[in-house]
Amino acid sequence: MAVEHAVSPGGETPPIARALRWEEPPEGPVLVLLDQTRLPAEEVELVCTDVPALVTAIRTLAVRGAPLLGVAGAYGVALAAARGFDVDEAAERLAFARPPAVSLARGVRRALVAYRRAVGRGDDAAQAAAAALAAARALHREDVRAGTMLAARGLALLRELLPGGGYRILTHAHTGALASVGEGTAFAVIAAAHRAGRLQRLWVDESRPSFQGARLTAHEAARAGMAYTLLPDSAAGSLFAAGKVDAVLIGADRIAADGSAAATVGGYPLAVLARYHHVPFIVVAPAGTVDSGAVDAAAMEIEHRPGHEVTDLTIPYGATAGVEAGTGVPVAPLGTQAYNPAFDVTPPGLLTAIVTEHGVISPVSAAGIRDLCASSRSGEGKPPG
Amino acid sequence: MAVEHAVSPGGETPPIARALRWEEPPEGPVLVLLDQTRLPAEEVELVCTDVPALVTAIRTLAVRGAPLLGVAGAYGVALAAARGFDVDEAAERLAFARPPAVSLARGVRRALVAYRRAVGRGDDAAQAAAAALAAARALHREDVRAGTMLAARGLALLRELLPGGGYRILTHAHTGALASVGEGTAFAVIAAAHRAGRLQRLWVDESRPSFQGARLTAHEAARAGMAYTLLPDSAAGSLFAAGKVDAVLIGADRIAADGSAAATVGGYPLAVLARYHHVPFIVVAPAGTVDSGAVDAAAMEIEHRPGHEVTDLTIPYGATAGVEAGTGVPVAPLGTQAYNPAFDVTPPGLLTAIVTEHGVISPVSAAGIRDLCASSRSGEGKPPG
Repeated sequence: MAVEHAVSPGGETPPIARALRWEEPPEGPVLVLLDQTRLPAEEVELVCTDVPALVTAIRTLAVRGAPLLGVAGAYGVALAAARGFDVDEAAERLAFARPPAVSLARGVRRALVAYRRAVGRGDDAAQAAAAALAAARALHREDVRAGTMLAARGLALLRELLPGGGYRILTHAHTGALASVGEGTAFAVIAAAHRAGRLQRLWVDESRPSFQGARLTAHEAARAGMAYTLLPDSAAGSLFAAGKVDAVLIGADRIAADGSAAATVGGYPLAVLARYHHVPFIVVAPAGTVDSGAVDAAAMEIEHRPGHEVTDLTIPYGATAGVEAGTGVPVAPLGTQAYNPAFDVTPPGLLTAIVTEHGVISPVSAAGIRDLCASSRSGEGKPPG
Repeated sequence: MAVEHAVSPGGETPPIARALRWEEPPEGPVLVLLDQTRLPAEEVELVCTDVPALVTAIRTLAVRGAPLLGVAGAYGVALAAARGFDVDEAAERLAFARPPAVSLARGVRRALVAYRRAVGRGDDAAQAAAAALAAARALHREDVRAGTMLAARGLALLRELLPGGGYRILTHAHTGALASVGEGTAFAVIAAAHRAGRLQRLWVDESRPSFQGARLTAHEAARAGMAYTLLPDSAAGSLFAAGKVDAVLIGADRIAADGSAAATVGGYPLAVLARYHHVPFIVVAPAGTVDSGAVDAAAMEIEHRPGHEVTDLTIPYGATAGVEAGTGVPVAPLGTQAYNPAFDVTPPGLLTAIVTEHGVISPVSAAGIRDLCASSRSGEGKPPG
């Protein structure tokens, strides 16, 4: 189960809370998550004491973002082990909580393998749980490091593609610190560009239906002091037409062996617009996002979310007196059927580059993905720049 | 000023109310408008007794839709004349209420010319007002006829382009009867295809930020018994990629002399997607939408609407107990700047055809637009088919 408590009672501006942490109070270990559905109005933490609570948090998008899901999945296995639940069942439930979030399945597997190895060598339950937790913590540390590398490599790529500086970057969905254990993916690159004094304007797609851009990316952009502008997703077209976009940077939830990138729905139409207007379209994602088991776009299962996310408006938390947060307000006629895919897939031919912590793949091809996987396994990465 | 009264107290399903009508109660003539911001939950009429009330209704989108605005503008001039207000000032205010709504300016001019001509020949105030009203009524009748012709010509074009039938049509914004004096523009073609048994699926873009698709197009599609599906604007990309769109049909608010078409924001990215996927992209608009005074896209002023339409969610009317309709609920951080153009412009090269009541222009070119204007002036139209 999950219990919740407010981090900030309001008033002063708190620092951006950590998206996730492991704690060991006397009652037993817990996984503490920042509830992203309540951001930016309220920083409320969900304290998960078991895997079903974590699965619910994943499905309701309380916790989301590819790198963060991986770490959450690993800690989820550690939690099941530490609390004496069935670890295999917990791993199974977690790994398939949200297709095509490959990082989640990968994080789960990493902790599960460590756990099983411990059991296999005759460790007792406590030792096996400690092994799972150590694996989750190692992944956590690696992901923080990977985020730093993504930012450095992404900024180096921008310097190369856009030597003039004064970038006007369009981003979609949310790829920042709130959805990450570090600074995020695409947003980490944007933040690095901002710190380097090279970001002129961040165009933030509102990212319907969940408004991740309006709620989360705008929130992080505002806190970082960036010059940013929010827009309806469909207004991006006229920005391109007016020549006001220098590059598009997005994240990815799964990358197939041929380089096809599944990302939050809306990425693909931006890629088509970028191509039509000769603007670089860049995916920023840790190497763990690659699922070489999926040969191409067709092999990636796409999650379809409930229609009410489109037909009804969900009132954001902390909104307005007299309006209850989380209320669904119907917009479309009763009984309206909705098409609500969580992701879409951009084919490799529309990607200018995929930036990973191990290096930049450009042009994007099956060979480039294979090389990445090889260098990822060997732990070697070319230096950024 | 405008007063409002409910058309339907709720309960049974009323027929779709007429979007606009002229009435002459004992207190003096009035223009009665269906308040589109309250649809589909409530059918509330605004009774305008003067031009400032009508201008407000136009700016707040209580009345919108290119053909309807033209007729409303003409009646607005007639209203000013009949009530003894300054007709020239009223015409000026109406004509520029919402750029680039060229139909509005054209409707205003038509009634104004009739009024001035009457004054010029020595008619008294009542006779001049009657002349303005007669001009408005003539425009009203012509627009109803034009709508019928648009539907016939559009359906003939679809039969030609898609001989197989079973159309899966994507539409954006709202172009139906609620925004028209007849059956609408693009939606009238879709309705004709439906009646002919040739519509397999209508894909309805929700059309942020005003949700015209979710509120109005879905409403009319449901009433007409069409198989329709609502989607977030940015989900259209994956529909195209999956080969599930046979044609895109939209309206237009202004067409330049070179064939550039300004339409509700979101039209242009669909045109780029349609081109990329080799899908016909068709604009359906009465000939009065052409503004040959605007040479190209650059010559068309684009209205930028208030940022709060993007940063805040407006609670729809008739929504949910405890939530006050019309309330703005903030989604983005306070102080967020928004890019909120009401329209975007699709260049002629991306248009498969422009369907007008006088004929179909395809390919779309300056010459085709010139021919249309000539046949429009001569009152001749080629027969549909």
